Amino acid sequence: MFRLTIEAVIRPTEDLEKVLFAFRNILPGSHPETRSTDSVTILHVESQSVGELSRLHVLLRRERILDAARRSLFAGLSSQGLDFSLNRQAAFAGRISFCGSDDESPLGPIHFSIQCSSPATLVEWLAPKTIHGKPLQELPTPSFNP
Amino acid sequence: MFRLTIEAVIRPTEDLEKVLFAFRNILPGSHPETRSTDSVTILHVESQSVGELSRLHVLLRRERILDAARRSLFAGLSSQGLDFSLNRQAAFAGRISFCGSDDESPLGPIHFSIQCSSPATLVEWLAPKTIHGKPLQELPTPSFNP
Repeated sequence: MFRLTIEAVIRPTEDLEKVLFAFRNILPGSHPETRSTDSVTILHVESQSVGELSRLHVLLRRERILDAARRSLFAGLSSQGLDFSLNRQAAFAGRISFCGSDDESPLGPIHFSIQCSSPATLVEWLAPKTIHGKPLQELPTPSFNP
Repeated sequence: MFRLTIEAVIRPTEDLEKVLFAFRNILPGSHPETRSTDSVTILHVESQSVGELSRLHVLLRRERILDAARRSLFAGLSSQGLDFSLNRQAAFAGRISFCGSDDESPLGPIHFSIQCSSPATLVEWLAPKTIHGKPLQELPTPSFNP
């Protein structure tokens, strides 16, 4: 089982197109929906494909932040899945910066919430152990039973 | 002497026009300038007129937040002036919400920095002592020597 939910609250002073641009820098194939209530608009992506995280996998290596990413991802690990947040302003610039709390991302983060049967496997794929920043072993993209 | 500087950093996912709209809800007569460097764009207002704060004076009463405002304003008082920040998302909606620090406003503050010879007088005018939210005494708009 793998279910990925990605959300970002659109703030009143933000430009929806610019937040979409930030989203697509990390999730190039995704089709975000907007969900609005009286008080808030949320950009929302749902997917059952691990491949949705492929661009993130690439960017973690390109930016050489595997060790920091591994710490952040393990901090968000539970028995049912994985939760983490990325800085939305960094994402706009095509960069990856993990947020320990919402306050660390001006105007709010992009939240990732993943339910899956083996979240640790997902972390080992996204951000494996390294020696001096180089992965000890690269794993193939994991697949999960429906 | 009275010199007011108001600034807001425009974040990459923001719409400049929407931040301008937030500014003008609090400072209807102002003419903000944008100042850009390679990495950041700042919306900036400078004024030597106490009247620039008239709308803020009105809104504090309309929203019945004089006691909270008085605490926030006195917290930002020094011998040379007064510093405080307002939540920009609230300002967009025409409301006033003080931020204790930048960290409390990941949604982006609007910074007010005032140099003046008697900042306490300014606070007494903006947010006087109240009894059950009603001002004990309303002061006239203060004037300062150039």
